[in-house]
Amino acid sequence: MVTSLNLTVRLKLSNRPGTLAKVVNIIAQEGGSLGAIDLVTASLDYITRDLMIHLRERGHIEQLIQALQNIPEVQVIHVVDRVFTRHLGGKIEMAPKRPIENWEDLSLVYTPGVAVICEALSQEPDLAYKLTMKGNTVAIVTDGSAVLGLGNLGPTGALPVMEGKAVLFKQFGNVDAIPICLDVHDSQHIIDTVMALAPAFGGINLEDIAAPKCFEIEEKLRGLLDIPVFHDDQHGTAIVTVAGLINALKVVGKDLGSIKLVMSGAGAAGVAIAKILLQAGVRNLIICDRKGAISPRDLPKEPSKAWLAQHTNPEGVQGSLKEVIVGADVFVGVSAPGLLNRQDIMKMSKQPIVFALANPDPEIQPEDIYDIAGVIATGRSDYANQINNALAFPGVFRGALNCHARTINDEMCLAAAYALAGIIKEQELSAENIIPSVFNKKVAPVVAKAVAKEARRTGVARKVAGGVPGEVL
Amino acid sequence: MVTSLNLTVRLKLSNRPGTLAKVVNIIAQEGGSLGAIDLVTASLDYITRDLMIHLRERGHIEQLIQALQNIPEVQVIHVVDRVFTRHLGGKIEMAPKRPIENWEDLSLVYTPGVAVICEALSQEPDLAYKLTMKGNTVAIVTDGSAVLGLGNLGPTGALPVMEGKAVLFKQFGNVDAIPICLDVHDSQHIIDTVMALAPAFGGINLEDIAAPKCFEIEEKLRGLLDIPVFHDDQHGTAIVTVAGLINALKVVGKDLGSIKLVMSGAGAAGVAIAKILLQAGVRNLIICDRKGAISPRDLPKEPSKAWLAQHTNPEGVQGSLKEVIVGADVFVGVSAPGLLNRQDIMKMSKQPIVFALANPDPEIQPEDIYDIAGVIATGRSDYANQINNALAFPGVFRGALNCHARTINDEMCLAAAYALAGIIKEQELSAENIIPSVFNKKVAPVVAKAVAKEARRTGVARKVAGGVPGEVL
Repeated sequence: MVTSLNLTVRLKLSNRPGTLAKVVNIIAQEGGSLGAIDLVTASLDYITRDLMIHLRERGHIEQLIQALQNIPEVQVIHVVDRVFTRHLGGKIEMAPKRPIENWEDLSLVYTPGVAVICEALSQEPDLAYKLTMKGNTVAIVTDGSAVLGLGNLGPTGALPVMEGKAVLFKQFGNVDAIPICLDVHDSQHIIDTVMALAPAFGGINLEDIAAPKCFEIEEKLRGLLDIPVFHDDQHGTAIVTVAGLINALKVVGKDLGSIKLVMSGAGAAGVAIAKILLQAGVRNLIICDRKGAISPRDLPKEPSKAWLAQHTNPEGVQGSLKEVIVGADVFVGVSAPGLLNRQDIMKMSKQPIVFALANPDPEIQPEDIYDIAGVIATGRSDYANQINNALAFPGVFRGALNCHARTINDEMCLAAAYALAGIIKEQELSAENIIPSVFNKKVAPVVAKAVAKEARRTGVARKVAGGVPGEVL
Repeated sequence: MVTSLNLTVRLKLSNRPGTLAKVVNIIAQEGGSLGAIDLVTASLDYITRDLMIHLRERGHIEQLIQALQNIPEVQVIHVVDRVFTRHLGGKIEMAPKRPIENWEDLSLVYTPGVAVICEALSQEPDLAYKLTMKGNTVAIVTDGSAVLGLGNLGPTGALPVMEGKAVLFKQFGNVDAIPICLDVHDSQHIIDTVMALAPAFGGINLEDIAAPKCFEIEEKLRGLLDIPVFHDDQHGTAIVTVAGLINALKVVGKDLGSIKLVMSGAGAAGVAIAKILLQAGVRNLIICDRKGAISPRDLPKEPSKAWLAQHTNPEGVQGSLKEVIVGADVFVGVSAPGLLNRQDIMKMSKQPIVFALANPDPEIQPEDIYDIAGVIATGRSDYANQINNALAFPGVFRGALNCHARTINDEMCLAAAYALAGIIKEQELSAENIIPSVFNKKVAPVVAKAVAKEARRTGVARKVAGGVPGEVL
């Protein structure tokens, strides 16, 4: 699926004018784009340099290296794939908050002092929010059955994504997140395992678990656990999508209650987006799977799709995606590449909003419809308006942990979407700017505040009574 | 059990000569011992100070505060229990090894770049040792059924110990350890859960799981998993005890093969110590439980004790601890406070070695036998010769991770014990110095080296072939 490549190539070049120019030309000829150039060593005869090169296709690498070696003044010292070097030794570590420097430290942090804390917790487990890692820690749980768009890579294959997620959790939300990659795969085993390991965690972030089992797992765990259970592929995607949609509608001057919205995809993300859209007041919502519009007139067997059939498509429209998209104000795709073409978008209503979120290849290429679409969003960072889950999960869990929430309910998700949308001020709003960047430092705090507020309003914030024991006075 | 208390008391004192002296006297009168005294603020009229006070009994605190308040020149501003303040917010956090600073970082660490790593791992899971957290990460697994000497405090009650352990793992062994506190309690559920969550970890440290189920859990997991499974309460204690014993025997001029060793306690630690002592060459080993010597003539029903009956006590001695200890060269206690008295030790052979490891109150108080014992060791930091697990587990796992070991076998444990003993040079050895301090920086590296060497010798070190993919040249 993903074939692009970030290389660092170390070259020993003859120190005479024009050598580097030859190298630069070859890289361009081979379709590479050149980034930074570092000087490693230099002498009268030779200069050693590191060149950062991006290739769109992994397959081009041998050809590029061969071409560089064919330049007489150039010697290729080594070639390093930066993705691999960045992963050497893993991406996260466990850090003590304070070091143990002497016997007193040791006796406070470990035996014998720790015993008092253990006894206090065993009598009042909610003190764990104050006195242990639980108050700031989330488990990122996967079985690796739906890793990115790559399918079932198993628990070890999923681990690098979970570690990356842990980095984002910490950096954007100051949440300590721990990858838990499960080597069990049916719903009940996953549920049992998460139940078993839950006590040390203030929340569970389910990740990259295939539909439809993800629905059952999430629903049952929500019922069984008294900490938030959030399936990022569902709720995270839904929050950011709806946030983008709220702003996109402002740009084209339409409103949620009166639009016709057609969605392609009834997997994890599709179902969650549908639920939050209904919560937000969308009425005319038609969801298509591979067979076409999901309709109350032809009830699907799969429970999650049956639910959709009963709660969406009020007019009972039937037909293929290409048929039902006619006259739609909004298209949201969380499905597969290239399902739509320019003609399809032309049949939508005026200033159509197109969220083509299939990743990395969207349902329709933005460049095909720039001139006819009102607003376009994708899942990619190389187009405007990236719908990126990293805008949601750090702030959502930050907010949930801040108020020791028992759950993350639909109201909290919708509040997160509105808060996220609100970060773009009215005067900044445009067809190319409906959603903030993941590097916008306001995002997580603003989302967290809205989520915690809504948790308190809906009564799911846990109150921790009084202070900490041991504060004698 | 643990009732001592570390307080920080903030006092506002009249700024006139003699006030602080009054405070110091009162603290001594109330049985407190005074540590550091910090100045907080000072004016012409008043001085505010923080006093660190240690009390042996939690019950004395109110009396102390009352006595301080009764001094006219003194106002008590607040009293803080340092154990609690040290635990606020928990003791560990998850840290990214490198921050994400820009889009390129994000695309390397997370999507889309991470996909290449995921695919590589799903094809060759052992690459996880190089490219993920697995290569340096251990799960500390407990069900909280035997927390310190406090009994069954449940998973939340155990969490502060596991966090403390994680701090020690990192600080002494540079091992990333993650607390996993399980809310399942029968052996099979614990085994199933550990099996399920194992893929992201390079080792499993079982902790504070009650005997006898800990034996079954450890044994089965060892058979099922291809990463080390180590029960610290067994193997950690055994390694440090045997290390101490090796040096104690040098001090009194006896050797392992010819001593009579009587041990009190057939729980987790006792069984493991017995196994490693047999491995080390001890022949005349008699283990007592509450009913007296475990003997092949009266086979116990419990499998772990039956094993002991069949492999120890070659002469089939029967009788109480007090009976069988007569003539013993070594006593090792991993049982209960106060089981022995001075008369019992006097009946042992010349220069008896007494390891009274019950914690915090030993089988016999060292002060009762200083004049008659050859060497005394306890589990406490306030006597010489502390047998402290923190001397073993960081180095043992460091060594196992360094060579990607598939298991930690008895040979590796014995090698760890000899390496640990060897840190005390012959010329430094004395009755008061048989084991290094946990703050001795040589400990973990020396143990790690011995463990990895023995893992390679015994064929349990995993070889990772070649370099890292992506290193094209």
